[in-house]
Amino acid sequence: MADTVIASLLIIGDEILSGRTKDANLSYLAEWLNENGIQLGEVRVVPDVEAEIAEAVNALRTKYAYVFTTGGIGPTHDDITVDSIAAAFDVPVVIHPEAYARMEAHYGKENFTDARKRMTRVPKGAELVDNPVSIAPGIRMENVFIMAGVPKIMQAMLEDIRPHLKVGRKVWTQSLTVHAPESKIAEDLGAIQTANPDTSIGSYPFYIGGYGSTIVIRSAETAAVEKAMGEVQALCFAKRFETDDVSEID
Amino acid sequence: MADTVIASLLIIGDEILSGRTKDANLSYLAEWLNENGIQLGEVRVVPDVEAEIAEAVNALRTKYAYVFTTGGIGPTHDDITVDSIAAAFDVPVVIHPEAYARMEAHYGKENFTDARKRMTRVPKGAELVDNPVSIAPGIRMENVFIMAGVPKIMQAMLEDIRPHLKVGRKVWTQSLTVHAPESKIAEDLGAIQTANPDTSIGSYPFYIGGYGSTIVIRSAETAAVEKAMGEVQALCFAKRFETDDVSEID
Repeated sequence: MADTVIASLLIIGDEILSGRTKDANLSYLAEWLNENGIQLGEVRVVPDVEAEIAEAVNALRTKYAYVFTTGGIGPTHDDITVDSIAAAFDVPVVIHPEAYARMEAHYGKENFTDARKRMTRVPKGAELVDNPVSIAPGIRMENVFIMAGVPKIMQAMLEDIRPHLKVGRKVWTQSLTVHAPESKIAEDLGAIQTANPDTSIGSYPFYIGGYGSTIVIRSAETAAVEKAMGEVQALCFAKRFETDDVSEID
Repeated sequence: MADTVIASLLIIGDEILSGRTKDANLSYLAEWLNENGIQLGEVRVVPDVEAEIAEAVNALRTKYAYVFTTGGIGPTHDDITVDSIAAAFDVPVVIHPEAYARMEAHYGKENFTDARKRMTRVPKGAELVDNPVSIAPGIRMENVFIMAGVPKIMQAMLEDIRPHLKVGRKVWTQSLTVHAPESKIAEDLGAIQTANPDTSIGSYPFYIGGYGSTIVIRSAETAAVEKAMGEVQALCFAKRFETDDVSEID
């Protein structure tokens, strides 16, 4: 597993934990990271509580190469991400002069309200992440990238972050949907996994009108994916399981 | 915070962390718990790795009243939730006789394959959770409820779990969508939060054609929600912010 870079995501906000807002950032970030040769190793969702945010940031930043956070960097009283991450690093919160200048230039002195000034606060020592959508910057504090929760803004911030990331080995994926219950393929699939140790073979069951399972094969080597998938396809053919077309290796 | 019951969710599976599968269980469980007077306090997503699952289960089961897990209880080699939770509790994995009897009765002796028998394994000391959809039971181990990842099955298992849960105070919620940037309402909203300490007031920005924010007020007392929402509405009226209709208190 040399060259593997693993990151984590911390989703901050009561609105996700209440079920009111459905998170859309996890799957986007996961796919974006993989395109950049980085794996997503863990996700946590925590409420708008400073101690909870700080504890999670400290757990994740010591365990993973990167921590991405979403949410809680707006102008309202419940936006406490900056304070919480400053607490995690045990540094004060300061006004970032460049963030202040950008925001003042954008809004004009008269409309640069205290609420907007709040969005120029960073943990001491942090750098800015550009926000081409709504100006108020994201923040980089060591290996922690602090991003907005609004998907459009989060996605734009990632483009500014990209050049700063170590690139690991891309993991190639190929999938095959089998229209048969998982339990009928389980034993043979386990044998294929054992025979293909350079791959990770997952079976993800679904129920849409009938039972089926999507077999997903992952490896840093495309040839290893192809070999294992060939064995899965031969198995389905021999057992007369109906399958969809196999996906591209991506 | 007396009478408050807080639970956590552990989502198990590489398929969520790869972005391939979008989790649908978080928001369902959050709303279901709230209807039952329980708050969701934290969510973690971990890969199909025994040590990671066990560590997360142990962290969550000591901190929260309940842990719900989803995923990894099927018949395939990558379904390692039972083993991992047994490891977390430091107990062996055993065949549960009642689970065995149910599965054998359902499939018949001839079709009761080793893969299906795998789904009768539980951490020693565990009880069963009924699965009216596909028979293979969920599992209760002390305060940990082990459920399927397939939403239809997970939702059915929750109905069997419901009578076993302590019921806390229901938190009432009311929301108002304001079509104005958050930064224009932030300072007054902070003052309303300060004046209404029995409520939790959240502001969740969005960008759909233009900037707006949904103000969500939560409290265990409906009167407290109504009072704070009245103040938010008066603020929007005074500032001439366009709003949608206020939601029901629910």
